[in-house]
Amino acid sequence: MSRSRGKVEVATRVALDNPDDLAEHYTPGVADQAKRVGDDPSLLARETVKGNSVAIVSDGSALLGLGDRGAAAALPVMEGKAALLKRFADVDAWPICPVSREPDDLVRTVKDLATSFGAINLEDIAAPRCFTVERRLHDELDIPVFHDDQHGTAVVVLGALYNALKLTGREPGGTSVVIAGAGAAGSAIARLLLRAGYSSEGIVVCDSDGVLHPDRDLVGEKHWLAENTNSGRATGSVQDALRGADVFVGVSAGGLLDPGDVAAMADRAIVFALANPDPEVDPEAAGKHAEIVATGRSDFPNQINNVLAFPGMFRGLLDSGAQRVTAEMLLAAAHALADVVGDDLEPGRIVPSVFDEALVPAMAEAVAGAVRAAD
Amino acid sequence: MSRSRGKVEVATRVALDNPDDLAEHYTPGVADQAKRVGDDPSLLARETVKGNSVAIVSDGSALLGLGDRGAAAALPVMEGKAALLKRFADVDAWPICPVSREPDDLVRTVKDLATSFGAINLEDIAAPRCFTVERRLHDELDIPVFHDDQHGTAVVVLGALYNALKLTGREPGGTSVVIAGAGAAGSAIARLLLRAGYSSEGIVVCDSDGVLHPDRDLVGEKHWLAENTNSGRATGSVQDALRGADVFVGVSAGGLLDPGDVAAMADRAIVFALANPDPEVDPEAAGKHAEIVATGRSDFPNQINNVLAFPGMFRGLLDSGAQRVTAEMLLAAAHALADVVGDDLEPGRIVPSVFDEALVPAMAEAVAGAVRAAD
Repeated sequence: MSRSRGKVEVATRVALDNPDDLAEHYTPGVADQAKRVGDDPSLLARETVKGNSVAIVSDGSALLGLGDRGAAAALPVMEGKAALLKRFADVDAWPICPVSREPDDLVRTVKDLATSFGAINLEDIAAPRCFTVERRLHDELDIPVFHDDQHGTAVVVLGALYNALKLTGREPGGTSVVIAGAGAAGSAIARLLLRAGYSSEGIVVCDSDGVLHPDRDLVGEKHWLAENTNSGRATGSVQDALRGADVFVGVSAGGLLDPGDVAAMADRAIVFALANPDPEVDPEAAGKHAEIVATGRSDFPNQINNVLAFPGMFRGLLDSGAQRVTAEMLLAAAHALADVVGDDLEPGRIVPSVFDEALVPAMAEAVAGAVRAAD
Repeated sequence: MSRSRGKVEVATRVALDNPDDLAEHYTPGVADQAKRVGDDPSLLARETVKGNSVAIVSDGSALLGLGDRGAAAALPVMEGKAALLKRFADVDAWPICPVSREPDDLVRTVKDLATSFGAINLEDIAAPRCFTVERRLHDELDIPVFHDDQHGTAVVVLGALYNALKLTGREPGGTSVVIAGAGAAGSAIARLLLRAGYSSEGIVVCDSDGVLHPDRDLVGEKHWLAENTNSGRATGSVQDALRGADVFVGVSAGGLLDPGDVAAMADRAIVFALANPDPEVDPEAAGKHAEIVATGRSDFPNQINNVLAFPGMFRGLLDSGAQRVTAEMLLAAAHALADVVGDDLEPGRIVPSVFDEALVPAMAEAVAGAVRAAD
């Protein structure tokens, strides 16, 4: 009976059944390998766990939809994510849940353990701290740093939008999008949409005080968003912004909208109500007014779930030896995600199933292609 | 074909084959578990990877016999150790190789990642830094911290000495021991022998300048050793100390002694020449003068190897939920190690085989018994 607990365990990849095995894989045999990789650390990715491993790092400060629950609460969530990474992408991930809260301390810890990992997955770290930590690690590490709440969510949303726009006869440049939620997810979605050809006039981001615009007293990421979206200088509430809009993307809180708010959107409206467990608007009621409705829930069609993105992303990052995550990789991954739906595309099926065996290879290849193109 | 590299990989312990599985083991199902363990972190050890996992932490500053080779060189060694821990004790260990060198920084990093681990294995960290790091973590963490170069070596040496003394008709209190090497291993051996009933007069520790005694200008751990061993105030070289001594324990460097130095020891002498890969004295030549000879090598009888100790130690620490490593646990482990040899005891067989299936359970039970006795 295994003594292991939780959702993942360690398995050996070498035989250790006699003294020769021990001498080869531990002392004295490992001394030669240690000297070689010490002299040329680039060998680590080929010869050690580093080549296929990911540290899943969370301080639990924005855990699921639960708020700040701390490092202990984060551990069962992050080990579940490690299990998903192995199951769907054959990635060896281990959960790391720091008790540090200061960005400098989190950065220091992650940098200090990066030698044994091929990539870093930041997860459920509260905004705005998460932006500081992600950007510093992006700049200071030579392995890719993927913040799932930003990058993963943005890839899935953009991929789903590719297909939703196709079904409703739209092009990105002429599509208006209202994003409710200006935290890690909302910010990353807005940034990736800008890179994908959506216009700065077409994107309006709202926080709990309404539309972000340059006349509000904003700092940090929200300030950047106010300066780089909503070039039409809209003001008011999310409901005001929604009137006549083509797309709603909710990454905020349940019950934000009434069905009437959806009715006020443009014809053939697209509604992604992604708050969990309660969507921003009742999806069945929204479906009476919108052509395409997606949620984060598994009991409705079109589940927009990060598990559609992060396995393929990490598979591609590790396979290609990428040193950092770029917007080009995210765009390529989102395209690949959308394309996997193929001929099955319909309003109730704008994203593939996470169990579609074509998904991870297609995304991994797309990411690796973007890495090669950047070299 | 697995994409995993190196000597260990991650395996899933839960089924993830349909949407219900995902909902149970990731969102939204994991939210309830996160709330529970967040409210009562003592549940982590029962319900998550923490209960059976060990961080193997090395900065590579005293790697094997290679000296300071750095974090990258340490990784293949530490993942080999992780493979041994799984193979022999069903422990889930992951290598962590910090680039930090300051004791404060190493302590900070280990404390920051301790949430996901049930114990810490410090490894191949240079003295005297290793003492500071180990003691601070021992005091400041609520999980056991085992420094294999200190504790593991001391347990195996003491266990082997139990059997060597039995074969040569000695008692600890009347036995004189010369230890060559005053680093992590030599210091820990001396400290554990004192706890095991060897006398402060009987133990003499030597560094490369000869016998440690209070008139030398020593600081830190060496100062402590000079004050607490060698109460007969011996001076001179290791060769001087060896004349008439019962036991030599070498944890220093190859070629330290000539066979003539062994000939000058007491009758029925015991020689543990543990420097790797070259012992302090040629074991075959030493065997002409000593009754029992042990080395660190697999190609001679009586291989004194830490792999005899650390699997059973960690199994016992994790099974018992110990919060720290105590001398009582080390003594119990050493006794259990010695007892596993049983009726096979002879001068060429004073320690069990690492492949003896009775070894880890016996040591784990002994450690757990010491933990219970301390409660």
